[in-house]
Amino acid sequence: MLLNQINGPLDLKGLTVAQLEQLAEEIRQFLIEKLSVTGGHLAPNLGVVELTLAMHYLFNSPDDKFIFDVGHQSYVHKILTGRKDQFDTLRKYKGLCGFVKRSESEHDVWEAGHSSTSLSAAMGMALSRDLKGGSNRVVAVIGDGALTGGMALEALNHIGHEKRNMMVILNDNEMSIAPNVGALHHYLGKIRTDRHYQKAKDELQHLLNKIPAIGGKLAKTAERFKDSLKYLLVSGILFEQFGLTYLGPVDGHDMEGLLEILKQADSVPGPVLVHVLTIKGKGYQPAEADSHKWHGASPYKIESGQMVKAVGPPMYTKIFGDMLIELAEKDERIVAITPAMPGGSGLMEFAEKFPNRMIDVGIAEQHAATLSAAMAMEGLKPVYAVYSTFLQRAYDQVVHDICRQNANVVFAIDRAGFVGPDGETHQGVYDIAFLRHVPNLVLMMPKDENELRRMMKTSILYDEGPIAIRYPRINGVGVELEADPQPIPIGTWETIRPGDTYAILALGPMVEVAEQAAEQLKREGLSAEVINARFIKPLDEAMLLRLADEGKKILVLEESSELGGFGSAVLEFYSQRNIFDVQVKIVGVPDLFVEHGSIAQQREEVGLTAERAANELRGMLPRIMKRATGQS
Amino acid sequence: MLLNQINGPLDLKGLTVAQLEQLAEEIRQFLIEKLSVTGGHLAPNLGVVELTLAMHYLFNSPDDKFIFDVGHQSYVHKILTGRKDQFDTLRKYKGLCGFVKRSESEHDVWEAGHSSTSLSAAMGMALSRDLKGGSNRVVAVIGDGALTGGMALEALNHIGHEKRNMMVILNDNEMSIAPNVGALHHYLGKIRTDRHYQKAKDELQHLLNKIPAIGGKLAKTAERFKDSLKYLLVSGILFEQFGLTYLGPVDGHDMEGLLEILKQADSVPGPVLVHVLTIKGKGYQPAEADSHKWHGASPYKIESGQMVKAVGPPMYTKIFGDMLIELAEKDERIVAITPAMPGGSGLMEFAEKFPNRMIDVGIAEQHAATLSAAMAMEGLKPVYAVYSTFLQRAYDQVVHDICRQNANVVFAIDRAGFVGPDGETHQGVYDIAFLRHVPNLVLMMPKDENELRRMMKTSILYDEGPIAIRYPRINGVGVELEADPQPIPIGTWETIRPGDTYAILALGPMVEVAEQAAEQLKREGLSAEVINARFIKPLDEAMLLRLADEGKKILVLEESSELGGFGSAVLEFYSQRNIFDVQVKIVGVPDLFVEHGSIAQQREEVGLTAERAANELRGMLPRIMKRATGQS
Repeated sequence: MLLNQINGPLDLKGLTVAQLEQLAEEIRQFLIEKLSVTGGHLAPNLGVVELTLAMHYLFNSPDDKFIFDVGHQSYVHKILTGRKDQFDTLRKYKGLCGFVKRSESEHDVWEAGHSSTSLSAAMGMALSRDLKGGSNRVVAVIGDGALTGGMALEALNHIGHEKRNMMVILNDNEMSIAPNVGALHHYLGKIRTDRHYQKAKDELQHLLNKIPAIGGKLAKTAERFKDSLKYLLVSGILFEQFGLTYLGPVDGHDMEGLLEILKQADSVPGPVLVHVLTIKGKGYQPAEADSHKWHGASPYKIESGQMVKAVGPPMYTKIFGDMLIELAEKDERIVAITPAMPGGSGLMEFAEKFPNRMIDVGIAEQHAATLSAAMAMEGLKPVYAVYSTFLQRAYDQVVHDICRQNANVVFAIDRAGFVGPDGETHQGVYDIAFLRHVPNLVLMMPKDENELRRMMKTSILYDEGPIAIRYPRINGVGVELEADPQPIPIGTWETIRPGDTYAILALGPMVEVAEQAAEQLKREGLSAEVINARFIKPLDEAMLLRLADEGKKILVLEESSELGGFGSAVLEFYSQRNIFDVQVKIVGVPDLFVEHGSIAQQREEVGLTAERAANELRGMLPRIMKRATGQS
Repeated sequence: MLLNQINGPLDLKGLTVAQLEQLAEEIRQFLIEKLSVTGGHLAPNLGVVELTLAMHYLFNSPDDKFIFDVGHQSYVHKILTGRKDQFDTLRKYKGLCGFVKRSESEHDVWEAGHSSTSLSAAMGMALSRDLKGGSNRVVAVIGDGALTGGMALEALNHIGHEKRNMMVILNDNEMSIAPNVGALHHYLGKIRTDRHYQKAKDELQHLLNKIPAIGGKLAKTAERFKDSLKYLLVSGILFEQFGLTYLGPVDGHDMEGLLEILKQADSVPGPVLVHVLTIKGKGYQPAEADSHKWHGASPYKIESGQMVKAVGPPMYTKIFGDMLIELAEKDERIVAITPAMPGGSGLMEFAEKFPNRMIDVGIAEQHAATLSAAMAMEGLKPVYAVYSTFLQRAYDQVVHDICRQNANVVFAIDRAGFVGPDGETHQGVYDIAFLRHVPNLVLMMPKDENELRRMMKTSILYDEGPIAIRYPRINGVGVELEADPQPIPIGTWETIRPGDTYAILALGPMVEVAEQAAEQLKREGLSAEVINARFIKPLDEAMLLRLADEGKKILVLEESSELGGFGSAVLEFYSQRNIFDVQVKIVGVPDLFVEHGSIAQQREEVGLTAERAANELRGMLPRIMKRATGQS
């Protein structure tokens, strides 16, 4: 095994092309084997084996900066930079991160998780290098999907303007680029990367510059002629228009071709874009055949490609997708909008049934939000399905376009709360804090599948402004589904379990935790009311006043940031009403980023457990003198 | 006067081109006169007189949807849709809004204020029309600057994909497009819009389609030939690559040419982009000469073009710009980053002194934020200067790229708090609520000019992560500037005025209001401590504990959302420490959008006054029974 001798990029330097090809094969087998146990982003990483090898072979990380967009395709990079022995812990608690992670290696210089940030990062690193007088390379690897994200285009515009030395590698795995067309383009790319072509181009430029810059038809014709020649020779005219030199496309699994084009790119002054055609899942037949399914894989059997099936009741995502179909069958106004996540948002069946009412805008969360606002204002009922963490990208559009104009947009906010193995970049723990202060918005969270269905019904009937449902990335609790879910009156909570001394206000999956805590207290003779606080905004003011009248000590349980979250809304309410004698405690996600692991481990880490909840209630005595030692 | 006869778009329909030209002249004079008294966006509106006339002449608002990007160039539209008599109240409290406003007219179908939203809105309206089976036009007017905003590019990508009937008017007033080049392009545009050209193109297409689609060099050459011809004939190749038909450019002040091209555009199926060249300030010499200064004008003398000078001490913006130069002279790491607001952010002098360290990325708040993160991680000290309301666009980048990676970015958040005449789209009242819950960030607000300078010093020396200073869009208080500002220990507040019973925690300009309130109470024999709570995060915990120990009743005064704001942080702190007997009230901006007017009127409207503050303190008795009637 060659792979056993590779402990860092320097170990690659002496290898022949044949050896690199052998290594590529070994790395593929390594990934297929390791991920069959741990799961992970198999298909994207199988697609970039040769590319990553070529980068580390030709360039010098960490002096040269490698920036992987999203970072889920960095496994090969991790293998080549001394981390191959940690793959058994991939995406596990305290284990190897599934994305680039600076604390893991000096070769990890830029972290992500969200898409489309790599070009901005590369631009910043190139500017910094030039200001500091350095000479290192800056190389960004970005997928064709990520390129549609607005900030990547903002960066491209700036990159073309600045003309700094930097390399953008477009990792293009679009299946629509068929092999034969690709081959022809490859041929043209070869011409371009050839030194003779460069020389011819220079000479032509020189000649054309001699034509006097006078007005009139002659100069114009010359200019057009020049542009035309350029267009005849250059394939990636779009990128050239943005001001980058375009090279390629090249077959991303042809090691020799890759090395050649990257060397060529390295000699081009200014920003250069290398168009690399890759096949997601390359080298593992099941993944090549269905790269969408194998983008993020569960553990699987290598021979059959059979993935371990999830057990338990359907996930909230599935409940959402099914119910949306039910609703859409009866209400023609409903359209679904997704920023490139039809599968992840449970909308595949909806797309089949209502192709005209399914709008996938690509990775474009901002555009999706504002588009929803406009459609709502035209009388439709847009349902913007988006992950909590990705909705962060559209915060301004939520404020400025949707809520300020009070548009009847329905938000279906999936993956609210902890998300498990994707870790800190994907945690859905801020949406309450960034949505709650926005005027006009109704914000809900269901305790179970039926409540999600009822909230969806509520949302479709609601016509007084924007309304949002957040739900977690977990299985439902397994209740039998009601045939005809009824809407829920806006701003009403429900008591799940009566009690005397305490009240626990819980959101979503925390209702179950609250019940466990109440059960524990009961065994000690203490009595806690458990309330399903299904409306985060507006609050159930009558119930809050009742709790105050009854002198209850209140605990808020939320799998969400403690700062500015639902608990703060409760505190604000009592302050606003001059009710100063109610004790309110909050248990949520504290002021830190929570890394990858299982959701259970993440809850445990921050103390979102029944034990902690019970303890907090036991400890709610006035003026406990922890002040000197406590942590803020 | 023709203008007196125009009470709606229908009154335009019978006019001749000559009459439209006369009307354009009358509208120009109207704008120049009215705005000399009220101030407003003069230059942008003088640039679109003919364009707006042509749109209303040819198309049928409100059935046809006109969407103005940003909306500051909608004055002519307002004049033509029955609002010319309200121009004396422009941008004043309860007066005519400076942007598109749906409550003003049925012709106002889409509101904005922030840039780059119009294409998403237009796409949404076109999709809605097609789903509903309508046939109305959708016309978006977007500036060349707004087009660099990421969400506009996201929308462009989607528009090209969907191929719906819609019109994008590119209002291009770039001074870099010199008249002669523009004239040539105009000529080419004429060719394209000519029916003969269309026919020739169709024939060519037909011919080329006959060439067998075989592999090898022949087909390839034919394809290239086709593309080359297209490129020879088409100017706006970038937009064509995006999938839109490109028409133009056309002189935006040539009424006949405009009408011709818009008619042509109207007959093109699918999305069409019309490139219109306009001159900002057209027809008013001072504005044409310095369109930057005249973008948003103060009241002025018509003959001389002399604007009314602002009185009072320098604005915080100016203090910031000057201090940044002082700091940058001594610290080479400092770079300034702005998303197209070098003037508004007080950075013009900095740009002259340090051209290499001044990075204007265009309208691209997201890219600017992530670029800053990368530069910080490379050891530089990026100062990201941005308006509070525009930072909303970069919320995800603040969370995911800057704070999660704990990058040493300095945020200079200008226009925090109310902003006056720009109104609800520009109020800087959410930044505390959307930043406070993000881990790792330090957030400050100064009470006066010297404190801003000290905070800037603090920020440059701080190397433990991101740090932000927010400051208002007002004059400083007029203190004499310290020669050598010293840093402030992180998380420390200061008592401005001692007191016994009460404590007022105030931010920035609210410190002065707090002092006035304390003064009022003093006259009644009541004593209030006034605290400059200059760190919003982290809190001064020692001081908060002291206040609790002293049994003080606390009032928080912040010109910022009451929901999830600084006051909530104080509530959360006491809750977290199990300190349940402290009374805390919050006076801030309630849960609504505050419209245009003066800052004083806006404060008055929400009750951010000394009278209200004093009243709240007087009323702080436990358990006042307002519950049944109070408003949440």
